[in-house]
Amino acid sequence: MPDVLAYAIDSPTGSFSKTTITRREPGPTEVFFDVLYAGICHSDIHTARGEWGPARYPLVPGHELAGVVRQVGSEVTKFAVGDHVGVGCFVDSCGTCEMCEADNEHFCDGEGGTIWTYNAIGRDGVPTAGGYSQGITVEQDYVCRIPDAIDLTVAAPLLCAGITLYSPLKRWGAGPGKRVAIVGMGGLGHVGVQIAKAMGADVAVISHTKSKEADGRRFGASEYYATSDEGALSKLRRSFDLMVTTVSDDSNLAELLDCLKVGGTLVNVGLPEHPSTLRLNVLTSGNRALAGSQIGGIAETQEMLDFCAAHGVAPQVEIISGEEINGAYDKVVGSQVRYRYVIDTSTF
Amino acid sequence: MPDVLAYAIDSPTGSFSKTTITRREPGPTEVFFDVLYAGICHSDIHTARGEWGPARYPLVPGHELAGVVRQVGSEVTKFAVGDHVGVGCFVDSCGTCEMCEADNEHFCDGEGGTIWTYNAIGRDGVPTAGGYSQGITVEQDYVCRIPDAIDLTVAAPLLCAGITLYSPLKRWGAGPGKRVAIVGMGGLGHVGVQIAKAMGADVAVISHTKSKEADGRRFGASEYYATSDEGALSKLRRSFDLMVTTVSDDSNLAELLDCLKVGGTLVNVGLPEHPSTLRLNVLTSGNRALAGSQIGGIAETQEMLDFCAAHGVAPQVEIISGEEINGAYDKVVGSQVRYRYVIDTSTF
Repeated sequence: MPDVLAYAIDSPTGSFSKTTITRREPGPTEVFFDVLYAGICHSDIHTARGEWGPARYPLVPGHELAGVVRQVGSEVTKFAVGDHVGVGCFVDSCGTCEMCEADNEHFCDGEGGTIWTYNAIGRDGVPTAGGYSQGITVEQDYVCRIPDAIDLTVAAPLLCAGITLYSPLKRWGAGPGKRVAIVGMGGLGHVGVQIAKAMGADVAVISHTKSKEADGRRFGASEYYATSDEGALSKLRRSFDLMVTTVSDDSNLAELLDCLKVGGTLVNVGLPEHPSTLRLNVLTSGNRALAGSQIGGIAETQEMLDFCAAHGVAPQVEIISGEEINGAYDKVVGSQVRYRYVIDTSTF
Repeated sequence: MPDVLAYAIDSPTGSFSKTTITRREPGPTEVFFDVLYAGICHSDIHTARGEWGPARYPLVPGHELAGVVRQVGSEVTKFAVGDHVGVGCFVDSCGTCEMCEADNEHFCDGEGGTIWTYNAIGRDGVPTAGGYSQGITVEQDYVCRIPDAIDLTVAAPLLCAGITLYSPLKRWGAGPGKRVAIVGMGGLGHVGVQIAKAMGADVAVISHTKSKEADGRRFGASEYYATSDEGALSKLRRSFDLMVTTVSDDSNLAELLDCLKVGGTLVNVGLPEHPSTLRLNVLTSGNRALAGSQIGGIAETQEMLDFCAAHGVAPQVEIISGEEINGAYDKVVGSQVRYRYVIDTSTF
């Protein structure tokens, strides 16, 4: 079945190079689609470099995929050849457990659990390989439709960055009359600002510096604060109904929590490498909550794509070639990307 | 104005002894009521013993007061002589800030903030003195009505323990179809079990041992777990919609959080002495929240009292004399009380 070109890495200290991988022939309910664009998420880097434990090498990362359907199985009802589609962080789950029934496939409790788009073992027993490739075969229930209003060049990052911000902003009530802060103005944060604004909230950005302030305001923020300004956070005590932090540095967690109004919630979607230390009285003394949120299920991901289409939410991307992946990784780690690298697989 | 008998402590290492304190003549909108019963809260002990920093000695603790109105100011509209009333953790606030306007007087942002029932300075410039006394003068807006269905002997603990549990259980959705765990079966927990059950939830207790299991089931729990049983918590992974922890020992916080279902909330109402250490991935990996909650405003406290009256929720108390306060403190610290000491001020 289809051999596709891909970029793979062989070891935690290796670099990406072009290779060929084999995708399976679509089963009756599967689709094969040409991956045209794949976003680079910081998670790809952590995984590829073994920072989250040993990865399965050779590794083809990528869990922000956007492309066009080329082939459908005989029983596929949801998609047709030529449809614009996307895949996010997972490609399968048991489909029958309580979590899957509740559209929480990403928390699947069934046999094998959620099957991640790469660095996992698929139900066929083959290691999964992600979006840094020219095509992929996926069960139709794990594929989302990309609305026409979203250009394929910018669609990919929505499949992870978009849903990672949309889900907590919706659940915790971002909307008219709410003052919402997005902490961190990177690949996740810059989408979060746009989504929160589109939901009707008053949006603030809390970043390390003010270097991205003009961008933040262009994305919809009406306030912009830099933690490098001494005392900036203490002036914001009891200011926000909701905060979403996208940063993995948790050193000012207590200060951030103190910026919540009474009854407010700070949602962490970052991935701190170390345990956090926190005096719980910052929560009790303001009926506050520290929550976590991890991507979203397929139904909510589709809802997010439709929302972004309706409101013109679009990641700001830099399109790169396959050969540029190695350099891009270093720039992501150095916070030099504005704001998401997207690999154009036609360059393979 | 009225001199009343009281029990005061003179230093962190001292003991309580009988004394006389002077209460102010009620102003136009104030009431003076005879305090008949006063609960002993663990907070009293922390404060009296200087464990939360230097206290104002001589100190008359007590923020769970139940009694009968003896005198009302000329403009008092809410109460009449003879009414059964109670006062909780605070006796005043600015009354005009956003927090007070929203019935969150306990988070008052105004000049002077919330004025606590003891160990604070009142608006008259005099240190506040709490419920270990035979009477108190309080602004009518900070007094609650105790429904006839609640015996005054058991009413006092509701003013702190009751509202401390009622508020988070209500806010975070305890009710029919919800599986709720109360962590700790002490003065707070044993009321929480009753309230959660009265709200219609399925209630579990998570205690250190099973020594209080029969009581817990009598209060309404249908499940009872002991953390001293090795592996007990790991078997409860993803079990509860809501958990409220009343214990100050946070050593198993991560394990407790992992007992939450996806999307569940653990509310801390305890007061850990030290910062807690936590890997935030226990939150992200289940869209969970760690919240804090601190007592409640006057309107919600009244609502709680009415709820307890309607549902027969009543603390289990041990009535003691003034002379027994010193011994009672040691027993509270040693978890020997079943489940709240209440001082009968007629013994003074």
